[in-house]
Amino acid sequence: MTTLFIAPGACSLASHIAVRELGLPVQIEKVALRTPDSPIHAINPLGRVPALQLDDGTVLTENSAILPFLADQAPGTSLFAPAGSAERALVQGWLGYLSAEIHTASFRPLNRPERYSADEAAHAGIRAQAREQLLKAFEHIERHLEGRQWLVGERFTLADIYLGVFATWLTRLGAPFDGLTNIARLRQQWLERPAVQEALKAEGLLQG
Amino acid sequence: MTTLFIAPGACSLASHIAVRELGLPVQIEKVALRTPDSPIHAINPLGRVPALQLDDGTVLTENSAILPFLADQAPGTSLFAPAGSAERALVQGWLGYLSAEIHTASFRPLNRPERYSADEAAHAGIRAQAREQLLKAFEHIERHLEGRQWLVGERFTLADIYLGVFATWLTRLGAPFDGLTNIARLRQQWLERPAVQEALKAEGLLQG
Ligand SMILES: N[C@@H](CCC(=O)N[C@@H](CS)C(=O)NCC(=O)O)C(=O)O
Ligand SMILES: N[C@@H](CCC(=O)N[C@@H](CS)C(=O)NCC(=O)O)C(=O)O
Repeated sequence: MTTLFIAPGACSLASHIAVRELGLPVQIEKVALRTPDSPIHAINPLGRVPALQLDDGTVLTENSAILPFLADQAPGTSLFAPAGSAERALVQGWLGYLSAEIHTASFRPLNRPERYSADEAAHAGIRAQAREQLLKAFEHIERHLEGRQWLVGERFTLADIYLGVFATWLTRLGAPFDGLTNIARLRQQWLERPAVQEALKAEGLLQG
Repeated sequence: MTTLFIAPGACSLASHIAVRELGLPVQIEKVALRTPDSPIHAINPLGRVPALQLDDGTVLTENSAILPFLADQAPGTSLFAPAGSAERALVQGWLGYLSAEIHTASFRPLNRPERYSADEAAHAGIRAQAREQLLKAFEHIERHLEGRQWLVGERFTLADIYLGVFATWLTRLGAPFDGLTNIARLRQQWLERPAVQEALKAEGLLQG
């Protein structure tokens, strides 16, 4: 059976939600991160989630690839769009932006400054700059959401699933991030979706 | 006419090569980066390349979205694979990895440490760590290429187009990066392709 490897509250939550939104027969398997004997190392040599193992053993990685793959298993839903369409490329563009600029360029130095300098004395400065970078990267989204309910095409897509995860990470940070009201509104609507609630409950992030 | 905005030698080279590999009627427009009066700011509010402007004015960003979009304009080529296939998701996964882990997590702190700390005294440490991170991120690719000619499915795909660009950036760095012989070999084969040579010449990176 196709298996999605996740860690509670990690970025794999996006792929987990997509499985539930699409109603796909995919087993969800929780693994520990940053633990030498975690089963994830046998699946993904990078030791990272999400990883999607297909029936024939093929392993897919990267949210920006797993989300489109999942949606393409149930073609025609409103979460994505046909190959070759500009809408599909806009959704894929947001997946790329969220992965590169929000997750990798901003949250990672904020949460893991040790990956950016071996010198502990530098970590406070790296965290401070990452907060600024995170704000700038989210402000770009905030402006785009002005007068729009969702990121692309006035309907809930893969891009909103993924943004909802990072918008949730943001709620821990307080000011000035709580001033991003369009993003907070989108997150609220995301949170009202049954598939999102089921995934959060299954990951132990929401009381059932 | 559809227009691709690029800057010579930047990561937009990947999308530029794809246009030529696919023989698409796309105009290539060079812009200056990090220049307040550059025309790129009117196209992409982030001021970044690549950006692809369609006939109706829609602007697509992110190599990981533009490359698939371009390939889908000429469906059936060997550069990509049908929607829903594992091969397509493997190619898209490498695009995501190259964008997030190679470009954003590794080359960016190496080339632009000022984006990771306002404290100049921290920059040497950030650069040193970025070199280590870059080596680790490329070693993952090097191992994957053991016994393989290309990243996915024994044929040249979008993933190899994009990897060739970063493999070229690598050649400036010398040891220990010159020990990544599978990557050097892939780059050599990339360089032999007429479309790659045309794009390099058009960007002024190769003498014609
Ligand atoms: N670019 C990858 C990033 C994956 C990633 O960084 N996952 C984190 C959880 S949010 C992880 O597994 N970290 C464990 C580690 O790096 O050891 C994606 O978007 O899927
Ligand atoms: N995640 C984007 C990154 C684009 C990017 O960083 N482009 C660089 C050139 S390699 C740029 O335009 N930099 C100018 C700037 O950041 O001001 C992608 O893969 O397309």
